[in-house]
Amino acid sequence: MEKKENKITPELASGFRDYLPEDMIPRQRMFDTIRGVFERFGFIPLDTPALEKEEILTGGDENFRMHIFKTNVKVGEEKLALRFDLTVPLARVIAQYPNEIKKPFKRYQVGPVWRAEKPQAGRFREFTQFDADIVGSASMMADAEIISVMYETMTALGISNFLIKVNNRKILNGLAEYAGFSSEKNVTVLRMIDKLDKQGWDEVQKELIDCGLELIEAEAIKKFVSIKNSNKEEILGLVESLMKKSATALEGIAELREILNYTQALGVPDDSWEIDLSVARGLGYYTGAVFETILQDLPSFGSVFSGGRYDGLVEKFSPNSVPATGASVGVDRLFVALKELKLVRPIKTVAQVIILNFDKTCEVTCLKTANVLRKAQVSTEIYLGQETTLKGQLAYAVRNEAPVVIIIGSIELQKGFAQIKDMKARKQSLERDSDLVLKVKEILK
Amino acid sequence: MEKKENKITPELASGFRDYLPEDMIPRQRMFDTIRGVFERFGFIPLDTPALEKEEILTGGDENFRMHIFKTNVKVGEEKLALRFDLTVPLARVIAQYPNEIKKPFKRYQVGPVWRAEKPQAGRFREFTQFDADIVGSASMMADAEIISVMYETMTALGISNFLIKVNNRKILNGLAEYAGFSSEKNVTVLRMIDKLDKQGWDEVQKELIDCGLELIEAEAIKKFVSIKNSNKEEILGLVESLMKKSATALEGIAELREILNYTQALGVPDDSWEIDLSVARGLGYYTGAVFETILQDLPSFGSVFSGGRYDGLVEKFSPNSVPATGASVGVDRLFVALKELKLVRPIKTVAQVIILNFDKTCEVTCLKTANVLRKAQVSTEIYLGQETTLKGQLAYAVRNEAPVVIIIGSIELQKGFAQIKDMKARKQSLERDSDLVLKVKEILK
Repeated sequence: MEKKENKITPELASGFRDYLPEDMIPRQRMFDTIRGVFERFGFIPLDTPALEKEEILTGGDENFRMHIFKTNVKVGEEKLALRFDLTVPLARVIAQYPNEIKKPFKRYQVGPVWRAEKPQAGRFREFTQFDADIVGSASMMADAEIISVMYETMTALGISNFLIKVNNRKILNGLAEYAGFSSEKNVTVLRMIDKLDKQGWDEVQKELIDCGLELIEAEAIKKFVSIKNSNKEEILGLVESLMKKSATALEGIAELREILNYTQALGVPDDSWEIDLSVARGLGYYTGAVFETILQDLPSFGSVFSGGRYDGLVEKFSPNSVPATGASVGVDRLFVALKELKLVRPIKTVAQVIILNFDKTCEVTCLKTANVLRKAQVSTEIYLGQETTLKGQLAYAVRNEAPVVIIIGSIELQKGFAQIKDMKARKQSLERDSDLVLKVKEILK
Repeated sequence: MEKKENKITPELASGFRDYLPEDMIPRQRMFDTIRGVFERFGFIPLDTPALEKEEILTGGDENFRMHIFKTNVKVGEEKLALRFDLTVPLARVIAQYPNEIKKPFKRYQVGPVWRAEKPQAGRFREFTQFDADIVGSASMMADAEIISVMYETMTALGISNFLIKVNNRKILNGLAEYAGFSSEKNVTVLRMIDKLDKQGWDEVQKELIDCGLELIEAEAIKKFVSIKNSNKEEILGLVESLMKKSATALEGIAELREILNYTQALGVPDDSWEIDLSVARGLGYYTGAVFETILQDLPSFGSVFSGGRYDGLVEKFSPNSVPATGASVGVDRLFVALKELKLVRPIKTVAQVIILNFDKTCEVTCLKTANVLRKAQVSTEIYLGQETTLKGQLAYAVRNEAPVVIIIGSIELQKGFAQIKDMKARKQSLERDSDLVLKVKEILK
């Protein structure tokens, strides 16, 4: 659209999107489902502001600083900036309210986060996360609870063909020793491994060598992260024998064994998750188990529900070390996936009844009828638009897919009747005012 | 707190706040209630990003520009900025998707908005609005629907002592003619009148005279906005006789008469709203009816649910003029009010059951029990903290006010029993595993 007569062009900046109602109605039902599962596990809600001090968000990490939206408003030396995830604000909250928040603390939080990245196809600068975290528990039972809540959430959303991939940063931290490269390069190497599913091995190997690894070291890494075995005991046994010199790696293996035991007790089916040694997670704050969830019918979507243990994050803000683990649903990506999988469809309206309103002499009765239905908990819309004919208004009701349409014209009014149309069954009947609610509820059943 | 050993001080900038769970649980229930009422009226959800182009938000109005948080990211000549309300993004959406969005369009939206104002007691720079709007209807029936949804929302939240105050900008636009001042000063004068309930008359009169009004003009305004009469027909008759020279004012009066008629049909009790000629609303975009809602037990809170008709706003972005009306709940202010009125109380947990977990040999059984309860839709937490004694864990459960506590120690385990504590009735019983769900549901009933 071009500017005309001083009009302001109505458009969003690239990297941003609107959810119009026909998507927003099912999207909100998706939120309700996720919240329902999280609450069933005893997670409780927290809300924090979108704007925080830049220092809090970056934790002094320059790598984060690049990707943050800053505002023009300063607080002391620091600018206010938009959060890029919900985990850092959680860590800040834990440190800030040591007396108010009793640990263990199981919290969920949903809200938008922002990343000031170059917009490109499918990558957005504002997106919503839905997080569940357990703070103050060093037990692997907490990590097993996270895997269980991931499994139950995906299942509750109607998805069957998904796979939760689990690894442990401690095993990956043993890679330097195993493959022979300097442990200082470990963070960089993990970040490269994290890109494996998107870039493929050749590209990653090139990057590894560019950052100073020997070919033989890169090949050892490749061999290691490619180990596959659907039997979890076997893969753990194999890794144990390969990494027996790394105490850290052995710790990671022992943790995964505990997690395996606990997830079985929690009823997580064995085939819903696997140990995948190539899962690294990009973010720097993970210290133990890490999780990803892929949709096997849509592998190119990447992970839709990810997280891990981050025992060191709260310490940035607090004299005390506080262990924590959790995971985050990428709800926007997941919503696109649910649409592709035909697990959600556009929904036009929440109104169960639309009352047409085409005769000035009947409008008071139409409004009274709306009030009676609403009082009976029936979601009711009264037609308020410019269409003045019954036909035109009926077309509106059909387009909006309302299950019931009520027509009150002067003839119906005189007799104390209303015409009730069951739009799905394509049936209609004349009902006395006194029977109207009952009849509508019968159709909606 | 001070910085220690390179720790980052965990704190928010002033003007921002966290909602910790004991507030967030009831706050979210408040959201659910509001959403329930809005959906009962057939409003459907919309979601738009927090960041928009600055030009969209200000609409070229310099007065808005001052109060906007801008980011460091530019799009062409314009910076990305944080929305200051949900109405302007709605108008942008209406203009941007003329084919996707069929009118009339009843939408609701909830989300944070930002104002870069100087922080002061009780004034926040980030707060949440919950809006309901009807776009594409010029009918006063739409305004009556807004008053009705305001009434039903307040009632559903358990508030009885509230008053919806209604006025019409068209009447106020007749004030210049009535009081004798230049109509160019009208917008400024309205903004001053809007502050009447906060500043009192003397302060407002001083401002009016400072901006060039004669004392006699200011006094005429005072006399007019002070007219009170609980009989709506009478007050409208009186205003009609005072303003008979102003065609605009007469139009406004006729509109209020229609609204009166329609709200009666919609079952809005006469004593739940009044016509208050001093209600002006600060924002520039209102063109017709304006609404405010005050809590009579907390008059200093100001309006908690406000809005009005804004027939000119969409036009800023669109070649077509689109009439619209709506209102917005200031949910943060309302939540504080509900707490003061003792209509909400802090809630510690959503978990209905806490399973203690103090014996390593029983932990698998504890997890299995958690899974069984969750599958039966019972919100269940398993104790994951550092406390290792039954007593310490029980104290955690008591502090979190969980209605049911389950204890499985080695004795219970051997016998295939669990100890179930009804915390409210202070009763406990030993139940077979097979009866556990039934027993818990019985207690929770």
